[in-house]
Amino acid sequence: MLDFTTNVFEKEKISLAGTTEYIVRGGRHLFSKLPAAFEGIKTIGVIGWGSQGPAQAQNLRDSLENTGITVKIGLRSGSASWSKAEAAGFTEKSGTLGEMMQIVSESDLLILLISDGAQVQLYKQIFAAMKDGATLGLSHGFLLGHLQAVGEEFPKNINVIAACPKGMGPSVRRLYEQGKEVNGAGINASFAVHQDINGKATDYALGWAVALGAPFCFMTTLEMEYRSDIYGERGILLGAVHGIAESLYRRYTRAGQDPKAAFAATAECITGPISKTISKEGILALYNRFSGDDKKVFEQAYSAAYHPAFEILLEIYQEVSSGNEIRSVTLGNDRLKRYPFNTIDSTEMWKVGEEVRANRKEDEIPLHPFTAGIYVATMMAQIDVLREHGHSYSEIVNESVIEAVDSLNPYMHYKGVAYMVDNCSTTARLGSRKWAPRFDYNLCQLAYPEVDSQSQVDAALIDAFKNHPVHQPISVLAELRPSVDISVH
Amino acid sequence: MLDFTTNVFEKEKISLAGTTEYIVRGGRHLFSKLPAAFEGIKTIGVIGWGSQGPAQAQNLRDSLENTGITVKIGLRSGSASWSKAEAAGFTEKSGTLGEMMQIVSESDLLILLISDGAQVQLYKQIFAAMKDGATLGLSHGFLLGHLQAVGEEFPKNINVIAACPKGMGPSVRRLYEQGKEVNGAGINASFAVHQDINGKATDYALGWAVALGAPFCFMTTLEMEYRSDIYGERGILLGAVHGIAESLYRRYTRAGQDPKAAFAATAECITGPISKTISKEGILALYNRFSGDDKKVFEQAYSAAYHPAFEILLEIYQEVSSGNEIRSVTLGNDRLKRYPFNTIDSTEMWKVGEEVRANRKEDEIPLHPFTAGIYVATMMAQIDVLREHGHSYSEIVNESVIEAVDSLNPYMHYKGVAYMVDNCSTTARLGSRKWAPRFDYNLCQLAYPEVDSQSQVDAALIDAFKNHPVHQPISVLAELRPSVDISVH
Repeated sequence: MLDFTTNVFEKEKISLAGTTEYIVRGGRHLFSKLPAAFEGIKTIGVIGWGSQGPAQAQNLRDSLENTGITVKIGLRSGSASWSKAEAAGFTEKSGTLGEMMQIVSESDLLILLISDGAQVQLYKQIFAAMKDGATLGLSHGFLLGHLQAVGEEFPKNINVIAACPKGMGPSVRRLYEQGKEVNGAGINASFAVHQDINGKATDYALGWAVALGAPFCFMTTLEMEYRSDIYGERGILLGAVHGIAESLYRRYTRAGQDPKAAFAATAECITGPISKTISKEGILALYNRFSGDDKKVFEQAYSAAYHPAFEILLEIYQEVSSGNEIRSVTLGNDRLKRYPFNTIDSTEMWKVGEEVRANRKEDEIPLHPFTAGIYVATMMAQIDVLREHGHSYSEIVNESVIEAVDSLNPYMHYKGVAYMVDNCSTTARLGSRKWAPRFDYNLCQLAYPEVDSQSQVDAALIDAFKNHPVHQPISVLAELRPSVDISVH
Repeated sequence: MLDFTTNVFEKEKISLAGTTEYIVRGGRHLFSKLPAAFEGIKTIGVIGWGSQGPAQAQNLRDSLENTGITVKIGLRSGSASWSKAEAAGFTEKSGTLGEMMQIVSESDLLILLISDGAQVQLYKQIFAAMKDGATLGLSHGFLLGHLQAVGEEFPKNINVIAACPKGMGPSVRRLYEQGKEVNGAGINASFAVHQDINGKATDYALGWAVALGAPFCFMTTLEMEYRSDIYGERGILLGAVHGIAESLYRRYTRAGQDPKAAFAATAECITGPISKTISKEGILALYNRFSGDDKKVFEQAYSAAYHPAFEILLEIYQEVSSGNEIRSVTLGNDRLKRYPFNTIDSTEMWKVGEEVRANRKEDEIPLHPFTAGIYVATMMAQIDVLREHGHSYSEIVNESVIEAVDSLNPYMHYKGVAYMVDNCSTTARLGSRKWAPRFDYNLCQLAYPEVDSQSQVDAALIDAFKNHPVHQPISVLAELRPSVDISVH
């Protein structure tokens, strides 16, 4: 069980399926505590201006107004982002925008938000430029994964902490702004303390998360974070949902369904009623919406898909935790110079999807029991693989349920699969392309033939689903979620 | 350029596309030279009785009859293969069958033909049990790849050599037996000398390859061997041809073609007229069979598919050479205990295929220009990735062309994709399942939409194909091929 001591915030004990976790609830009323949390920190350097950079830098600056703590942006000289940072009010003249390594050397808390690939290229130089006794802040454990894969470590003379918002940068900013009026709006964050050389690292991490506007913060380790994050995006968050949608669309059209109806019964159904029901009422409530033959269809789909999905998810988890996936991403980053990312939505399905979305009536999107059974089986398999590997329920539910239905599926709902996948990090885009086809093939080779052979429902598997310990944590954590819907624009 | 010195056999210089390679031609007339080649070797231990084991052990015993060199089989006590080895005439009573480590300790030449997974589990024990100064023989460089991936080396007090037949075990045996009557029948082999502690390693390797019945032997390194082998089977030999067939079948049926006609135009076309034309006349001859609109269709397919295939093939090559793929196989071997291999041919396509094969008229299988264009583009991309990485033409042509059309596609022709893939090694079965879906998705997302958008033929790419240096090596090596067709039963 992960535990921590905070001298500034209020630690709260929650009980999730018989396990105890400690969290900190955020909120604007806590901003007055930030100077105490950041004791000893005068300068926060935010490095990078991609997805998280603009959001975190602006949220931190707003939250720390009039505290005497300065937020500065560090970018490569000549970076195309320079003018964007200026437009957001960070300027060389005011000393809040500067060359990357200069800002690194000035920072007491250095928040490193450049891409995973850039971190791998630059970390030696950055470590060398950091002040003795400074704090390195990461929003993702990828760099630790890389260091482990190549047999290196962080420098011993710095704190290493993480605050990891469970949503994309633009949402982190948008919900923070909404939070000025709507109490509790914001993106959940996990936090971690990897090295604590002055006893203040925990409050630095919590202060950072609170300043970002996180409505609640749960603890993880940097290692658990990168494992669950890289795994989750390859699974139900991006890769699996893509492979599921493609394979189901083909199945329904091959059976004679009209393309538009097939799109509605697959992608639309997942991003519409399935996601919305899970988001508001939980996974079990989705199941309980079906009755009679539809319930049977759900159960058949669930029974046939659970193990084929579990098999691929277990492979992903092992590839991530062994370091293979991280080495692959580093190779993939390099290969992008020769073969840049190509579109993943030029196939018939996603062209049809454009038309369907243009004429969408939100209330008329069908809730298809077979689609729901396949999707939920994959989500449950993802949860079970994480449970087997000792992740906390907060992390499991965030990386397998909340991030899917509240954060990512809404992007696919808005503009299709490429809009969802390609708004994510390079690490995620590579991984989604790599694993989506594997889910597709395993479903087509194993799950669908089993259903078509009129196999029996696996009663034990359905019972395990209905009595699954995760349902209680989902409902507890649902109450801690943002109180407004995500923005996808 | 790889070169070697043999004191026993005749080294022959061949010129392949302006590069020089040295080969040794085999044949039964050379069996009298085997005692000289194996100078100092009294006992050859063959460990394992899987695919290569029975073939190599029996061929060696037959070739070494009356030479005083004994061939012994080493198996785990209680192995299910024990009785099979006995049925082939290896017995405890005659001292030619024994417990694995006992045979290891008795062998002057130890030929290790257990699975890659078993090698990884047992190599430390085997190295420890080997005689000082003995010779370790491998038929695949996987173990070197594993040692490199974990930062270890072979013991320094042994020779390490390889003889790698370019076909499955049953074919190695069947063609050897046919070779008694048909001169030149046999499976090509590459050979490598990784450690030579007594100056005899080259002739040991050549003697071994000749004794197996190889009609010609070309040199490689153990590292080049495992790279090209593991890469090749993930590419056009197994994974790519599976993904191509699946994606084309869907494309043709989605366009309204009857399922049987679509199967004939895809899998049948590839394993029938495409493979046979390439085998007998080369790749360019296949292209030249098309004229008019058909030629245009071939060129459009080729233009659209070459880069999407190259991109995945480059990724495979990098994954193999970085050690990632080898680490993945080791993880995959372990995962098989929980999720054993499942069928890959339970989908509609392969069910239809059974019917099509049952009513097949060999001469009536259509030669479809679009299918040919996609398949040939992938084969050429595979060749080009190997060229970029410095492989010899002998190795390139064997791993990308000859093994495809002469050795593996005939298995798919006989009984479908699972019969081809699942008759191969566990390493190959894991890899084919992993990469086939990637080729499928890249073709569907990039190549087919490009064709459908009426894009122009890439004239430079077609010119490069027509003037490709590989065509001359293919025709040279075609003359060195087995003079009889492979057996797939």
